[in-house]
Amino acid sequence: MTQVELTPDLTVTLIDSMGNDDSVTHAARVSIVGARAETEEGERKGLLNFLMSNGHLSPFEHVTATMMLEVPIFVTREIQRHRAFSYNEISARYAKRPPKFYAPQFDRELHQIGKPGKYTFEVGTDDEMLVVWSEMRFAYQTAWDAYERLLENGVAREVARNCLPVGIFTAFYMTGNLRNWMGFLSLRTAPDALFEIREVAFRIEQELYKVAPACMELWDRAGRGL
Amino acid sequence: MTQVELTPDLTVTLIDSMGNDDSVTHAARVSIVGARAETEEGERKGLLNFLMSNGHLSPFEHVTATMMLEVPIFVTREIQRHRAFSYNEISARYAKRPPKFYAPQFDRELHQIGKPGKYTFEVGTDDEMLVVWSEMRFAYQTAWDAYERLLENGVAREVARNCLPVGIFTAFYMTGNLRNWMGFLSLRTAPDALFEIREVAFRIEQELYKVAPACMELWDRAGRGL
Amino acid sequence: MTQVELTPDLTVTLIDSMGNDDSVTHAARVSIVGARAETEEGERKGLLNFLMSNGHLSPFEHVTATMMLEVPIFVTREIQRHRAFSYNEISARYAKRPPKFYAPQFDRELHQIGKPGKYTFEVGTDDEMLVVWSEMRFAYQTAWDAYERLLENGVAREVARNCLPVGIFTAFYMTGNLRNWMGFLSLRTAPDALFEIREVAFRIEQELYKVAPACMELWDRAGRGL
Amino acid sequence: MTQVELTPDLTVTLIDSMGNDDSVTHAARVSIVGARAETEEGERKGLLNFLMSNGHLSPFEHVTATMMLEVPIFVTREIQRHRAFSYNEISARYAKRPPKFYAPQFDRELHQIGKPGKYTFEVGTDDEMLVVWSEMRFAYQTAWDAYERLLENGVAREVARNCLPVGIFTAFYMTGNLRNWMGFLSLRTAPDALFEIREVAFRIEQELYKVAPACMELWDRAGRGL
Repeated sequence: MTQVELTPDLTVTLIDSMGNDDSVTHAARVSIVGARAETEEGERKGLLNFLMSNGHLSPFEHVTATMMLEVPIFVTREIQRHRAFSYNEISARYAKRPPKFYAPQFDRELHQIGKPGKYTFEVGTDDEMLVVWSEMRFAYQTAWDAYERLLENGVAREVARNCLPVGIFTAFYMTGNLRNWMGFLSLRTAPDALFEIREVAFRIEQELYKVAPACMELWDRAGRGL
Repeated sequence: MTQVELTPDLTVTLIDSMGNDDSVTHAARVSIVGARAETEEGERKGLLNFLMSNGHLSPFEHVTATMMLEVPIFVTREIQRHRAFSYNEISARYAKRPPKFYAPQFDRELHQIGKPGKYTFEVGTDDEMLVVWSEMRFAYQTAWDAYERLLENGVAREVARNCLPVGIFTAFYMTGNLRNWMGFLSLRTAPDALFEIREVAFRIEQELYKVAPACMELWDRAGRGL
Repeated sequence: MTQVELTPDLTVTLIDSMGNDDSVTHAARVSIVGARAETEEGERKGLLNFLMSNGHLSPFEHVTATMMLEVPIFVTREIQRHRAFSYNEISARYAKRPPKFYAPQFDRELHQIGKPGKYTFEVGTDDEMLVVWSEMRFAYQTAWDAYERLLENGVAREVARNCLPVGIFTAFYMTGNLRNWMGFLSLRTAPDALFEIREVAFRIEQELYKVAPACMELWDRAGRGL
Repeated sequence: MTQVELTPDLTVTLIDSMGNDDSVTHAARVSIVGARAETEEGERKGLLNFLMSNGHLSPFEHVTATMMLEVPIFVTREIQRHRAFSYNEISARYAKRPPKFYAPQFDRELHQIGKPGKYTFEVGTDDEMLVVWSEMRFAYQTAWDAYERLLENGVAREVARNCLPVGIFTAFYMTGNLRNWMGFLSLRTAPDALFEIREVAFRIEQELYKVAPACMELWDRAGRGL
């Protein structure tokens, strides 16, 4: 029997990107003067600022980025609700996944207090977290063993995987433009977002700083909305 | 301890719709004569036929339908890859789900033969299917018990649910226009689609016959492509 | 020679719709309790209010509406930049359009003052407006005459129409969901939107009140943003 | 008075791109093995071929390209019906455009024969083409003069431009992924597409060969559909 692995680590890798801060100002210049004009360093900031504060967001659509995410299924499900992106995910129909599962970091809130629409969350004790890890390990291991036994019996992967918990890791490519990414971050780094999706979103944010730093700074200072 | 329920039943309910076969011809007439003109019964068929066989599909976008689906998470994940639709799904962050899980019908293929891209599937014996049901029941029940114990320990639903398998049922609203629905059916009723998503897709197809029967018949006879 | 007609009248007609205020709460209830539950009159308002003020906008996507618009090409061009809608427009390749052209109402601002990004507009005098109407009538009539002569010479409509000004009227179907419509109105009823598109947007807003009055009121009182 | 310029030249410039043939196979490998794996030269062709002939088109969404187009408004209107792309176009509200207008090449078909849905087109004589150029020059010049007089009278650009014909040139950025571009080309290089949009589409096709030549060749040999 294979032993399952539990980890709180969520991974984001920048795979490729198109354009940068200048691409946004070039696209904006096309709207204003009908040609691709260079913008001086000083002007650029003012122009980006004008675009963002006036909601002229289409110029941000000409910068694109592909990320590779390795996260559990329950996080993937929330992420893939964002319909503006392109996704390519490992299929459990075609491949056996490794037995890697998610368990929370020790500083993750454990207790949900209040009513729908007004929840607050609180961290638990270390003992409580140990209970969580041990229950998860047991549930994951039992599910994995059932999955493996089914495969050994010649059952198709697409049937056997029904046993696998949403805590199992999956991996996917995700491509979108800077406007979409900013909209994603606005929602998914907000305080009421799921802890794990916030972790992922903050990592994505860091990667986007490599692509278009002036845009990202401005978006951050302008209130991180969209 | 609550006992889990296993079922192969997938449910599709038509909730609401806008328009019908005539809406398509009205929209097409706007393109051709610039006004909403009535079409005689006889003409209608010819016009619909012309639109479909020439790939003029935009008139089919003015008919919309909302379905309620009750299906397992692994089916939901495939369905929600279709980005043209609107979804509202029960959230396991906000509500405890009932312990209802999916297990296959006895005539579902169990064996996957061949290499990626060239798989064929074969049904198994009744004994093999009993192994599947018993392994699933065991994995589901173990996961559910861990889930309940975590909740009893005051652990937030959004953490405890990590244990739950992708075979658990969820429910969601799904709204889209007739062109999107036809595109969905083309892919998801095809022979190489997942057995369970085909079941769902055929039910959706039946519901769409209630909304726009002439369009659906035509689409079927024209090869079910898009 | 046919004489051109000039008019400031822009037309919006509600053709069809799906759902109402209750459809939104039904969809929201699916997210919260996993079932379509009825909502009491009193609760409904609170729930809609909660959804809108917390940016939970997906339930508004299960209400759809089709409008028929009769507006000039320069307005159509701005409207059709909204990519979430479905359009079916009369094609000048297939049909000869009537010689109906747009000229502004007498209270439309005529003067654009200031620099890009900081424009203000001011109304002109009646005399200035008469100049506008007379220049437009002349330009439209000349273009129309050239168009007709080309058609009489056997030139294809798709070539002859190149002469026609963007002030000529066109007609199209436009279908979208309530969330899209609200997003459209947020941008297009704003003070910096083009005068003519604001006129159209306000008419669309009126029609949407017939479909989902409680949602529209709430959106209006909540600041008309999205 | 400024003299208008007439030209049949339509311009397409590749501004930027992300990814190449390998990006498609990398994304496909993520679906199959859950990791970004290198593909040998020989394998690559087979994999691309498999993806395209089986309609697995999502891997083509991780390659993106931005084009700059300079084309008349009547072409722009058809192009911008493609909702999957991002556009930034020069606005006639903010800038005075140069007096550059479209007139057809001498080998463009002039005569439209038959009924809607069954049109055929035939070239005209050189004399007929001269009539077209002369009528267009006259209509364009008259419209332009009215436009300039209105501007000189202090009328806002957004009002004065109503006189301008759809034959006037505009310029815009257009960004999309390879799957979208192929879908665009399938429709817009087809024999029943408008002559001018076919010209533009063939130029776009040439530019895309610079980005992902193996994908483009394959798409061409596979029948140019999608």
